[in-house]
Amino acid sequence: MQKADIGLVGLAVMGENLIMNMESKGFTVACYNRTVEKVDAFVNGRAKGKNIIGCHSLEELAANLAKPRKVFLMVKAGAAVDGMIENLLKVLEPGDIIVDGGNSHFPDTIRRTQYVESKGLLYVGTGVSGGEEGALKGPSMMPGGSPAAWPYVKDIFQGICAKVEDGTPCCDWVGENGAGHFVKMVHNGIEYGDMQLICESYQLMRDLLGMSDDEMHEVFKKWNTTELDSYLIEITRDILAFKDTDGSPIVEKILDTAGQKGTGKWTGIAALDEGVPLTLIGEAVFARCLSAMKNDRVEAAKAYARPKPEFKGDKAAFIEAIRQALYASKIISYAQGYTLMRTAAKTYNWNLNYGGIALMWRGGCIIRSVFLGKIKEAYDNNPQLSNLLLDPYFKATIEKLVPAWRQVAAAALQYGIPAPTMTSALSYFDGYTTERLPANLLQAQRDYFGAHTYERLDKPRGEFFHTNWTGHGGSTSAATYNA
Amino acid sequence: MQKADIGLVGLAVMGENLIMNMESKGFTVACYNRTVEKVDAFVNGRAKGKNIIGCHSLEELAANLAKPRKVFLMVKAGAAVDGMIENLLKVLEPGDIIVDGGNSHFPDTIRRTQYVESKGLLYVGTGVSGGEEGALKGPSMMPGGSPAAWPYVKDIFQGICAKVEDGTPCCDWVGENGAGHFVKMVHNGIEYGDMQLICESYQLMRDLLGMSDDEMHEVFKKWNTTELDSYLIEITRDILAFKDTDGSPIVEKILDTAGQKGTGKWTGIAALDEGVPLTLIGEAVFARCLSAMKNDRVEAAKAYARPKPEFKGDKAAFIEAIRQALYASKIISYAQGYTLMRTAAKTYNWNLNYGGIALMWRGGCIIRSVFLGKIKEAYDNNPQLSNLLLDPYFKATIEKLVPAWRQVAAAALQYGIPAPTMTSALSYFDGYTTERLPANLLQAQRDYFGAHTYERLDKPRGEFFHTNWTGHGGSTSAATYNA
Repeated sequence: MQKADIGLVGLAVMGENLIMNMESKGFTVACYNRTVEKVDAFVNGRAKGKNIIGCHSLEELAANLAKPRKVFLMVKAGAAVDGMIENLLKVLEPGDIIVDGGNSHFPDTIRRTQYVESKGLLYVGTGVSGGEEGALKGPSMMPGGSPAAWPYVKDIFQGICAKVEDGTPCCDWVGENGAGHFVKMVHNGIEYGDMQLICESYQLMRDLLGMSDDEMHEVFKKWNTTELDSYLIEITRDILAFKDTDGSPIVEKILDTAGQKGTGKWTGIAALDEGVPLTLIGEAVFARCLSAMKNDRVEAAKAYARPKPEFKGDKAAFIEAIRQALYASKIISYAQGYTLMRTAAKTYNWNLNYGGIALMWRGGCIIRSVFLGKIKEAYDNNPQLSNLLLDPYFKATIEKLVPAWRQVAAAALQYGIPAPTMTSALSYFDGYTTERLPANLLQAQRDYFGAHTYERLDKPRGEFFHTNWTGHGGSTSAATYNA
Repeated sequence: MQKADIGLVGLAVMGENLIMNMESKGFTVACYNRTVEKVDAFVNGRAKGKNIIGCHSLEELAANLAKPRKVFLMVKAGAAVDGMIENLLKVLEPGDIIVDGGNSHFPDTIRRTQYVESKGLLYVGTGVSGGEEGALKGPSMMPGGSPAAWPYVKDIFQGICAKVEDGTPCCDWVGENGAGHFVKMVHNGIEYGDMQLICESYQLMRDLLGMSDDEMHEVFKKWNTTELDSYLIEITRDILAFKDTDGSPIVEKILDTAGQKGTGKWTGIAALDEGVPLTLIGEAVFARCLSAMKNDRVEAAKAYARPKPEFKGDKAAFIEAIRQALYASKIISYAQGYTLMRTAAKTYNWNLNYGGIALMWRGGCIIRSVFLGKIKEAYDNNPQLSNLLLDPYFKATIEKLVPAWRQVAAAALQYGIPAPTMTSALSYFDGYTTERLPANLLQAQRDYFGAHTYERLDKPRGEFFHTNWTGHGGSTSAATYNA
């Protein structure tokens, strides 16, 4: 029997769909699952008559693979990956390749790459985005790990992934060790932000403008023909039109407590670790946490009994202003996410291709959008671009959006409709474009109570001063005491 | 010679000042420093003629201590603490007590408590706040660790710490293992928030109202006689009046890039880990990060060239509105910080006394204020209070402040003055007091692309539903596939 091009371990829905996708592109796939009944069910079910080889052990899997063997893990992130790597190391040989396609935390992927390479094998940690449907029809893929592995898996990855209009695959090599999973993590953080921005727009329309779900459906339908054209706007359009069995919009019957799987949290922690102001995603993660405090909110809503706001103004104009506020905030979110990637690339010594990342996200994944094409152009024009907000196209765009953005953000705060990401994004924009922030006062405070010293505007950077503010604290700075 | 009541290791400024403080309260203190020249310099200098015993080795230190021995470490947080614990274990005996008074990360203190207890000794990790002057004259102290250690160190800790007006010490037992350092970490996070709120008020006055430093000095002087009466308002008042050698305000010559030592970051990470929306402190930490991007900001300020805002309205009334916005935002920050402590207490099984924590912060530390007395009262009235915003006093207070708060937050966004913590706090308040947030749409999106399922308003919690939104995705939820 012909040897398989690749093996896949983990027959949950994502794994099965990836196999079906690979097979449909002409690859022969061997598969294995710890609960081996699933192998039989799959092989006798969806996989029947396909070039798919069911295996009942990892030994059997290894025996069925062409060399160098490639084993794609689609198992639960965490200990299961480490356990499976240990088991695979017993049946594979030096030169073989282990691929982890789960949502692994990037520090784990850094560690695993080093470990697997120390055994003479190669390792790939790849982000896979697009959900079940993406896995089947073409996901966005963000592979990193051992660079030597890429030539061996490239054809399969670029064969099964999503393509943009001109056929370019939404998958390219991201970088060393954990780079692929880092970029996937930032993707997920951005997804949190994009979703929250849509939610705030929806709440402004529902609770401030008093619009029906059908009316909002029409708005999102229209928005999807503008610069906002994207998968998340598209499904929001469809969700708002979806009726329950009683004919009323089903979305209004859904409990308003959001779940989270942790990748948004990881993105926030990475930003704090890198010292990068990732305020929009941070607020989006916290907005989910606040939504989960449903009982508290019900109690607080009763206690404070805020009156229902009455919107004064031109409704149609305000809807368009909301669209512009959403778009401007979205640009901020991507600018912040890209700054995080640039900073982490320095920390971890990754050589990231920022335009390439935009292209990988352009299709297949949850945040896919026309907008990402503009980001790719910005980095094609200037691969060293320090911040998306300094790209001429985005600068011109933001400047057009600012008036409406200010109007909506201020209105949200005045009417009492929570819009934490739209307002936070605007504060960031205002801070980023302010030459003198008030941190001079903050540095004076720190020097006052902790003798932390400060730098001066009229002296070179790196020269530190301490003031004896009280006249009795001594003029010795804390630095002097760091014995 | 008389045995010492306590030993202290680490003769930097904080350590020396703590020794002088202890000695002044009648305790005999033995001291040691790794660089032993510092011991001689101290004993022959500030410590001359005092009940302070210089030791040149840890053996000598141990020999000079009354049993059970108490050794207070005031060394750099991190590996130095672990190293010193190892060395102390060689010269101490079961029943002796090691105290870490540095800014240790609470997970380290959890680990060290368990480790030192496994050797038969007792461990205390205590927050110490108040800077150099606090250490000398009376710091706020937040001890946690081995409960059995508390009776042995209580007299010394409560003897040297700050006292409130009626003499109550600003130090009490916080809780098991890392509880003391956790509470100190939250204190520091709140300090980040308080400082940022003052900075935003200052920037609104300076850049929107065009006020001079002398005028702002007068404002903070007045504010310090209101509910805002606090150490940080007091030093801000003094900083704004402080003139450089040329007679101009020195604060305007200080570079506007803020440093951070990491405890604010830890607080943000703890909030993300616990799923608690700690938006104000999060924005304050990110505001410091943004201030540090000075070169980018200078470039962006040039590129965008935003016109200088021209304030229209009653200046005096707006100054009072800023004060109210600051106060309201500060209440939000403490409400969020307390929610974090309540949530972590469940996670780590700590029995925290929330009123007691307010009392510990009431004097001695950087965030000391009259306001904390009101928080203590709130928890005295209801120790089980789920959120500070539900306390009757704070509810009535916030309701009075809301109109001015909305006015200032909206003005900041309209005029383009960054006020990330004031605006974020208001978004949180609006979200917290909203019964129905838009997370129902978010749950629909997650169910649409990931089959994550949702709960319904008209069904019991814990019952999960999945909709086949597209008509072709299958009606099987992701949960079903978690094989």
